[in-house]
Amino acid sequence: MTGAYAALESRFKRLGLVNEAVAMLNWDTAAMMPEGAAGARAEQLAELKVIAHELLADPRLADLLDGAASDGLDDWQLANLNEMRRLWLHATAVPADLVAAYSRACSECEMAWRKARPANDFASIRPLLQRVLDLTREVAAAKASKLGVSPYEALLDQFEPGGRITEIDQLFDHLAARLPALIEGALTVQAEQPAPRRPAGPFPVESQRHAARRLMDRLGFEFDHGRLDQSLHPFCGGTPDDVRITTRYDEADFARALMGVLHETGHALYERGLPAAWRRQPVGEARGMSIHESQSLLVEMQVCRSREFIEFAAPILRVCFDGNGPEWSADNLYRLGTRVARSLIRVDADEVTYPAHVILRYRLERALIADELELVDLPEAWSEGMERLLAVTPPDDRQGCLQDIHWYDGAWGYFPTYTLGAMTAAQLFDAAKRAVPGIPAAIAHGDFAPLLAWLRANVHGLGSRFSAREILVRATGKPLDAAVFEHHLRARYLAA
Amino acid sequence: MTGAYAALESRFKRLGLVNEAVAMLNWDTAAMMPEGAAGARAEQLAELKVIAHELLADPRLADLLDGAASDGLDDWQLANLNEMRRLWLHATAVPADLVAAYSRACSECEMAWRKARPANDFASIRPLLQRVLDLTREVAAAKASKLGVSPYEALLDQFEPGGRITEIDQLFDHLAARLPALIEGALTVQAEQPAPRRPAGPFPVESQRHAARRLMDRLGFEFDHGRLDQSLHPFCGGTPDDVRITTRYDEADFARALMGVLHETGHALYERGLPAAWRRQPVGEARGMSIHESQSLLVEMQVCRSREFIEFAAPILRVCFDGNGPEWSADNLYRLGTRVARSLIRVDADEVTYPAHVILRYRLERALIADELELVDLPEAWSEGMERLLAVTPPDDRQGCLQDIHWYDGAWGYFPTYTLGAMTAAQLFDAAKRAVPGIPAAIAHGDFAPLLAWLRANVHGLGSRFSAREILVRATGKPLDAAVFEHHLRARYLAA
Repeated sequence: MTGAYAALESRFKRLGLVNEAVAMLNWDTAAMMPEGAAGARAEQLAELKVIAHELLADPRLADLLDGAASDGLDDWQLANLNEMRRLWLHATAVPADLVAAYSRACSECEMAWRKARPANDFASIRPLLQRVLDLTREVAAAKASKLGVSPYEALLDQFEPGGRITEIDQLFDHLAARLPALIEGALTVQAEQPAPRRPAGPFPVESQRHAARRLMDRLGFEFDHGRLDQSLHPFCGGTPDDVRITTRYDEADFARALMGVLHETGHALYERGLPAAWRRQPVGEARGMSIHESQSLLVEMQVCRSREFIEFAAPILRVCFDGNGPEWSADNLYRLGTRVARSLIRVDADEVTYPAHVILRYRLERALIADELELVDLPEAWSEGMERLLAVTPPDDRQGCLQDIHWYDGAWGYFPTYTLGAMTAAQLFDAAKRAVPGIPAAIAHGDFAPLLAWLRANVHGLGSRFSAREILVRATGKPLDAAVFEHHLRARYLAA
Repeated sequence: MTGAYAALESRFKRLGLVNEAVAMLNWDTAAMMPEGAAGARAEQLAELKVIAHELLADPRLADLLDGAASDGLDDWQLANLNEMRRLWLHATAVPADLVAAYSRACSECEMAWRKARPANDFASIRPLLQRVLDLTREVAAAKASKLGVSPYEALLDQFEPGGRITEIDQLFDHLAARLPALIEGALTVQAEQPAPRRPAGPFPVESQRHAARRLMDRLGFEFDHGRLDQSLHPFCGGTPDDVRITTRYDEADFARALMGVLHETGHALYERGLPAAWRRQPVGEARGMSIHESQSLLVEMQVCRSREFIEFAAPILRVCFDGNGPEWSADNLYRLGTRVARSLIRVDADEVTYPAHVILRYRLERALIADELELVDLPEAWSEGMERLLAVTPPDDRQGCLQDIHWYDGAWGYFPTYTLGAMTAAQLFDAAKRAVPGIPAAIAHGDFAPLLAWLRANVHGLGSRFSAREILVRATGKPLDAAVFEHHLRARYLAA
C-alpha cells in the first residue's frame, strides 16, 4: 500500500464537491437567476472551473496515478482508478493556452450564432465557426495522442467514454439503410388510421405542473431529493442527492412540457440511482451520454409512449385538465403521442425520424474533423443528406445547418449519443421485459417499481464500473444491436 | 511598485468569487433545497470554505501584505490593504486544530439547542455550551493578541470591525438609564389612545407577495438584480449583483411578512449599492453589522413605520388585500405598526423595548467571556436583567436564556450590533432629513429616490473605505450618539 490510491480518492472527492457546486450554480443560472446577474455568475463559474482544473491538473497526480496501481485495489477501485486516469488525461492533454483560446473561440462563436441563426446568415458566422473547427482539430489531435485513439474518437470520448467509430458506423449504417423505407411505411400506416384529435387548451401552467409532478412521483422521482422548475431550455441538473429538472410550459399544448418532464425524469432517475457508496468518485458517476440518453428515452419513448402507460395516464390527464370527449381517450392520446412526420428541425422530430437528423450530423462532423468537407460546402452537404435520409429539403440554413448550437459552441462528437441512446433504450427495455415479464402490466397500473428495480440493478447502480458496451452485454446479453431498435420501430409504427 | 498589491487584489478577487458561490448555495439551502440534500450540501459548503481558507491563509500572503505598503497606493487601495490584513489576521490567528474543534463544538451545541429549547432544558445543554464558551475564549485570546485589542473586542471585530467596548458601554449605559422610564411613558401614552384594530385575515400568500413586491419595487429594489422567495427564517443573502431576500408568510397576519420584507429590503439596498468598482475586494464589502443593521432598520423602523410612509402604503394595502373599514385607515395602521409591549422574546419586540433585550445579552456575554459569570448562574442573571431593564420575568429558560441561537452557535460578540444598528439608523435618517428636507414629503408620495440617493452617497457607495465611526462622522457630523435614538423614540412614542 503506497497510500497513493487513498490520496487520489480524497483529491477526487474535493473535485467532485466543487463540480457539485458548479452544477447547482448552473441550475440557478437557468432556473432562478435574475438577468442582471449574468456577468457576475459567469465569473463565479469561471473561478470554480479554474479551481477544479487546478485540483485535477496538479502535476503530483501523475505519480499518484502510477503509484496507485500497486495498492492492491479491488474491482471498483481499479475501475475508479481508470476513470481518474481518463479524466486526468483529458484535463492535461491540451496546453493551457490552447484551452484558453478554444474557450474564447467557442464563446465568441456561440454568441454570434445566437444572432446568425434568426438572421439565416451562415456566411457571416463561417469564419468564427472555422476558428472553432480548427481549434477543435488541435484539441482532438492533442487528446488523441494521449488516449491512443483517432482524433474524432478523442472528441467522442469526452461524452461517450470508449466510443469507437467502427461500431457507430456499423450501427448507423444499418439504420440509415432501413430508415427511408421505415419512415415511408410508418406514414402509410398512419394515413390509413383516423387522424388523432388534439385536445383544445388553454392548459393552465398550474394544472400542467400538477400533472407532471403526479407522474414524476409515480415514476419514482423523489421530491425529497430533487425539484421541478422552469427554464427556457429544459434540462436535468443538480447532483445525485438533489436532482433538479426543468421544463417550459406552453398553455396551448400540455404534451410538450409533459413529455419533456418525463424525458428529464429518466435522466433524473439515473442520477439518483448512481451508487451512493461512490459519490463524488469518478466511478460513481454516470457512464456517459449514450447511457444517460438511454435512460431519458427509455422513460419518455419506450415507457411513456407505450399503450400501457397511456392507459394508465389518460384518466389522470382527464382529471388534471378537466378533459372529456373522444380526444381524451387513451387510444387517441396514444396516436397523438406516436405521430410521425418528416420535418426539418431535429428537436421537433419524432422517434422514427430523429435518427435521420442525428446520422446526418454525425457523418458531417466526422467529415469536417477529418478535413474531408469544407465549411463553405456544409449547407449543400446538409441539404443533400436531408434529401437522402428524410426526403425533405431545408429552404434555408436557419432550418438547416444553423439550427443546432452544438458545433458553434464546440460540442463536436456529441451528436451520435442521441441515437446511440435511443438504440440502447430499446435494447435495455426489451431485456427488462424479458427478465421481468410483468413489467408492461405493472406499467398499465402505474406501478413502475419492477422496471425501476431492474434499471437500478443493471444500469443506475453500476455508475462507471463498466464501459457502456459492458453494461449492455451484462444487461442484455450482447453489445448494442441496431436491429433491436429497428424491431421496436417496426412493432410500434408498422403494425397497423 | 513591487506588484505585491496587484497580486493581493487578484488573490482576493478569487476569494470573493468563492465566497459568492458560498452565498448562493446558502440561499439555495434555505429557499430551494429539498431536505434530503442537506448532507450533500453541508459537504459542498465545507469544501468551498476549505478552499476559501486556503486562498486566504496562504503563507505567501504575509510577504505580499508587507510588500504592498510600498506600492504607492491611493486612499481606496490603502483602505483595501487594511481590510485585507484584517481578514488575513482573523484567518491565521487561530491554529487549525482549534478552528476545527471550535467548529465541531458549535455544530454539536447548535444541534442540541434545537432540542433543548423546546424542552426548556438548559441543564442538559450547559456542558456543550460550556465547551463552546471555553473555545470561544481561546479563539478570542488568539485573535486579541494579533489584533491588539481585548478578547471581547476581538470577537466583536468579526462582526463590527473596530468596535470598542468603551464606546458601546457608554452608548448602552446612556440608553439603559432612560429605557425603563421611556417604556413606561410609551405605554402610558398608548393607553390613553384608542386601541388599534387588527385587520382580519386570511390574507392569501399571493396577495402578500404582490404587496411586498410592489413596496420593494418602490423602495428601489431592482428585481433584475435580485429575488424575493420564502424560507423558514427570513434573511438577505446572495451577492451585490444578485440580492436574494426571503420571508415567511402567515395568512392570519400580513404585517409580519411585510415588515420583514421591508427590513430585508434595507439590507438588500445596501448590498446592491456597494461600490461596483471594488466588487470582490474587501474594501468593496459592507462595513460591518451595525451599519448593515442600520440600513435594514432605517427602512423598516425609521421609514416604514413613519406616518408619511403609512399614508402612502395604506391605499396600496387596501387594494392588495381588498380591505375596507376603519381598521384599514392610515391612522389605525400607524398605531398598529408602532404598538409597544413588554415581552419576553427579543425577535417579537418592538423598537422601544428591543434595546433592553440586546443590552442584557451584551452585558451577559461580556461577563461570560471575562469569566465574571458562570453558566450555571446565567438563568438567574437573565431573569434579574429582564426585571431591571424591562420589568418582566421569564417563567422558564425557553423564554429566557435558551431563546436565541447566537451563543449556542458560537456567535459571541454579535448581539450589540442590533442596537448599535438601531441607533445608527436614527442618526443617519435624522442627518438625511436635515441634508434633504424634502425626504419626508417624498416618502408620503412613495418617492424614495431622494433618500436612496443620500444613502448611496453617504453609506452604501463607501463600502469599507471608512470605519463605521468615520462613516457616521462624515454623514452626520458626529460619532454615534445615543441621544439621537432616544430623541427619535421620544418623538414617536411620547408625543401623544
